[in-house]
Amino acid sequence: MSQSQPPTKPINLIQKADLIDQLWSPRVVAQINDYQFKVVRIEGEFIWHSHPETDEAFLVLDGTLRIDLPDGPVYVAPGELYVVPRGVAHRTAAEGEAKLMMIEPRGILNTGHEGGERTAVNDQWI
Amino acid sequence: MSQSQPPTKPINLIQKADLIDQLWSPRVVAQINDYQFKVVRIEGEFIWHSHPETDEAFLVLDGTLRIDLPDGPVYVAPGELYVVPRGVAHRTAAEGEAKLMMIEPRGILNTGHEGGERTAVNDQWI
Repeated sequence: MSQSQPPTKPINLIQKADLIDQLWSPRVVAQINDYQFKVVRIEGEFIWHSHPETDEAFLVLDGTLRIDLPDGPVYVAPGELYVVPRGVAHRTAAEGEAKLMMIEPRGILNTGHEGGERTAVNDQWI
Repeated sequence: MSQSQPPTKPINLIQKADLIDQLWSPRVVAQINDYQFKVVRIEGEFIWHSHPETDEAFLVLDGTLRIDLPDGPVYVAPGELYVVPRGVAHRTAAEGEAKLMMIEPRGILNTGHEGGERTAVNDQWI
C-alpha cells in the first residue's frame, strides 16, 4: 500500500500471519511512507545478527517471543512492543510458535548483513 | 527511546494507554529512528483533518475504532491495522472507549494542519 493508493480494508494481523506457509518468512502487510509492517511466524531460534542502519520494532501478536541480547534474553508477550536499537546484536526465538509484527524501513533483510540460508526473500506482500 | 539507548523492557501497550488520564491525548511509548509509536484513548468524535506530509497507521488495542473517510466509515477491531494515506481527510471516532496505537513520523500533530483546541501537546512520552 503506497501513499498514493486509496484506503482499503483493515488488516487483521493474526489472520495475515496464518496465511504464511513457512516459518521465519516475513511478509509485508502494510506500508507508511518508506516503513513497512511485516508479520511473521516463528518457532525455534533464528541466527544472531544486527542492523547497523536501523532500529527495529517487534510487536507480539500470539505466543511468546524471546529476544536474545548481549546482556541476556527478554521475553515479549502478546500486546507488548520491544525495540532493538540499531547495531545491537540480537537473536529472536520462540518455544512453540509465536506470531509477530515487525516495523522497520523497507529494504531491511531479516538476517541483517549476515546473509546465509536463513535470509528470507524481502519485500514480499501477503 | 533513541537509537543510541540500550534495550529496555517490553512495552505493554494497553497498560500504557491506561496510564493516560485524558482522552484524545496521544503519548509516545517507543521510537524507531524518526518514527514514533503513540498510544491514545478515545471516545466520541475527533475533528476532520489530514496529514499532507505522511501516511498514518492505526492499530486498535481495545474497543472499536471508526475512521470516517471521504467515501464513508471503516471500522477497525482489536488486532487490526489500518493505514490512512497522506493527504486523505479523516476523522477518528469511537462509540464507547477505544484504545489505539498510532505509528507515524515524529512531529506530526493529531489535528494535522487544522489546529484548534483539540490539538494535543506533541512528543509527550509515557
